[in-house]
Amino acid sequence: MTCEPPRTTISTAAKDVVEQINPGLTDQLTADLDDFAPGIAELIIETAYGQLYSRPGVDLKTRQLATIAALAAMGGQTRPQLQANVRHAVAAGATETEVVEIIMQMMIYAGAPAVLNALWAAREVLRSNDHTT
Amino acid sequence: MTCEPPRTTISTAAKDVVEQINPGLTDQLTADLDDFAPGIAELIIETAYGQLYSRPGVDLKTRQLATIAALAAMGGQTRPQLQANVRHAVAAGATETEVVEIIMQMMIYAGAPAVLNALWAAREVLRSNDHTT
Amino acid sequence: MTCEPPRTTISTAAKDVVEQINPGLTDQLTADLDDFAPGIAELIIETAYGQLYSRPGVDLKTRQLATIAALAAMGGQTRPQLQANVRHAVAAGATETEVVEIIMQMMIYAGAPAVLNALWAAREVLRSNDHTT
Amino acid sequence: MTCEPPRTTISTAAKDVVEQINPGLTDQLTADLDDFAPGIAELIIETAYGQLYSRPGVDLKTRQLATIAALAAMGGQTRPQLQANVRHAVAAGATETEVVEIIMQMMIYAGAPAVLNALWAAREVLRSNDHTT
Amino acid sequence: MTCEPPRTTISTAAKDVVEQINPGLTDQLTADLDDFAPGIAELIIETAYGQLYSRPGVDLKTRQLATIAALAAMGGQTRPQLQANVRHAVAAGATETEVVEIIMQMMIYAGAPAVLNALWAAREVLRSNDHTT
Amino acid sequence: MTCEPPRTTISTAAKDVVEQINPGLTDQLTADLDDFAPGIAELIIETAYGQLYSRPGVDLKTRQLATIAALAAMGGQTRPQLQANVRHAVAAGATETEVVEIIMQMMIYAGAPAVLNALWAAREVLRSNDHTT
Repeated sequence: MTCEPPRTTISTAAKDVVEQINPGLTDQLTADLDDFAPGIAELIIETAYGQLYSRPGVDLKTRQLATIAALAAMGGQTRPQLQANVRHAVAAGATETEVVEIIMQMMIYAGAPAVLNALWAAREVLRSNDHTT
Repeated sequence: MTCEPPRTTISTAAKDVVEQINPGLTDQLTADLDDFAPGIAELIIETAYGQLYSRPGVDLKTRQLATIAALAAMGGQTRPQLQANVRHAVAAGATETEVVEIIMQMMIYAGAPAVLNALWAAREVLRSNDHTT
Repeated sequence: MTCEPPRTTISTAAKDVVEQINPGLTDQLTADLDDFAPGIAELIIETAYGQLYSRPGVDLKTRQLATIAALAAMGGQTRPQLQANVRHAVAAGATETEVVEIIMQMMIYAGAPAVLNALWAAREVLRSNDHTT
Repeated sequence: MTCEPPRTTISTAAKDVVEQINPGLTDQLTADLDDFAPGIAELIIETAYGQLYSRPGVDLKTRQLATIAALAAMGGQTRPQLQANVRHAVAAGATETEVVEIIMQMMIYAGAPAVLNALWAAREVLRSNDHTT
Repeated sequence: MTCEPPRTTISTAAKDVVEQINPGLTDQLTADLDDFAPGIAELIIETAYGQLYSRPGVDLKTRQLATIAALAAMGGQTRPQLQANVRHAVAAGATETEVVEIIMQMMIYAGAPAVLNALWAAREVLRSNDHTT
Repeated sequence: MTCEPPRTTISTAAKDVVEQINPGLTDQLTADLDDFAPGIAELIIETAYGQLYSRPGVDLKTRQLATIAALAAMGGQTRPQLQANVRHAVAAGATETEVVEIIMQMMIYAGAPAVLNALWAAREVLRSNDHTT
């Protein structure tokens, strides 16, 4: 087969969410991955932000805190994504305390190793200056 | 060793949270498990609700939605706990839409099987009358 | 918010794949879930079959065998999805031997419990008549 | 390819361990699975008991308690295997208290849902009469 | 909310276990995390060692070997915790052979990748001099 | 116990597969691990390649693609094994496109974090010169 893989169109709804949490995200992910895995960047961005986060019914900050809970509970294999979402949560209005509390709460559901690893990952983001300029 | 295992004391803080989400929870878990696993009921209740959920900084409804996200993402092995926490989320003020949206959002982090299994589990709770009397 | 959640459009590419592996799948998933989780059926169908399976480069049978490997390795929490994909693999041209071999191979990567549970789940599908009429 | 799959030879070392923990295990697993997945029963039995459990350095009871810890921590997707190994642990000399304590200990590493589900699974085995005749 | 989060009291029972496996553990974890996640250090120490490891019925060395089994089976996301517990196991009287055997045994339950990654992590601890002074 | 642990014999069938995917694998794994975990190298090689991959019914390239799917879906804790198997897949005749497509497909089953981490791991292998002599 020589045809090109399909391209997912990024909707206005997705662009609106990305603008709020990380305006450079789509360009960054596309630049990183499009040569190696053509189309994956648009597919992830549109599925996440155009088809899920942009749905009505739950505000963006609560969605981001729920994501942090899930990524912390899933364990250290999602460390880069947890760190990105901690930045997105802060951009959506979450405080450091809210992020830390939600991670700590996971101790009862996913155990102490998951919590410790997630706290260390989140601290690296929150106590640096990367998200404050 | 013939001494009795230690007993975790359930704090007032834990009792306050349990009162809001499921007043019978401590008695039910103790009656179920204390003969077989002495002390586990109090340990879980106190750790979850006395040491974690009762901390300041995040309201109970947001905590419950974060828990639902995590349990959905952890997959079908936590089905009974997901169902209990869907009831607790509703008791803490969450709507059916909020519960469903948070579960659906997990598709991008944990995949479609986790979402489908969590939706089926939540529907069994939310579309029955168990939590409405 | 009172607006309706967005609807994912199911592409022709997705319909073509669904036609090959399970013509009734979209209707069945929509009928099951649309009232409770509006839009999730179309989102899953389009993401899976319109954006991923329909890409060039790997044939449908190989894709289905890879899916069976992954679902078996992920453990028993994906049992319903493993069973559906065993049916889809057979519809895509895989033999019972191929399905069984791919599951057995997972022993070295995911351990014997995952393999045993996946074999039992697959047998329920392959040794019934559900997929043959 | 029409040739038969290879057959794993079950060693005397494996037979010795199986004799201690569950004399009918090999026949039972072979009768269950050999028609569908030829060879998997012997491969699992020999790998587990001939190549791992029979190694010197750790006694059988400690090995079985370690297995129970791991299966409990891996979550409900290994329920049938956890139940089998609770029986094997008792046959290797473990008491109910030891089994329950090891499962409870997993709360700090894998969370309360894993512990609750494992306790319920173990109780079904330990409080029935299946292992006492 | 401006009130301080609750503080978990570390019991004498917890202190006794910590003294045996790693006398500096509580101070080290508190110094590391208390500023960022106030209270998590005491909560983890007390839950693990005051409420679980200090219970009668299973000796400390067997408990530590069970923990190593579980952490190895849970995969590489718990690497720092596995390494800490390998040190604790040795302090509780386990030999290198026992640690290695228990990890190897996990191959049949969790697969070869989990075993390889756990062996590499344990070797880094056991073949350095960190635990021998 | 002072006796030596048993040694798994590596069969001709295993040697044939290893010869095709990575001729130096057995020597490399034995040199790495035999002093610390005696016998594990042979046990893994023989179980994987002598007892599983060498079975008839599925060709080596399809087996390797199924393994890549499973390791990608299992998440970042199997990164070293995923990278080794990407090399083995290429040696078995898989193209870069096939490897990338199979990893991307996992998005619908295991989520975007698993896919992103697997793509980054695979790229490190495929876009270096390590597998091309």
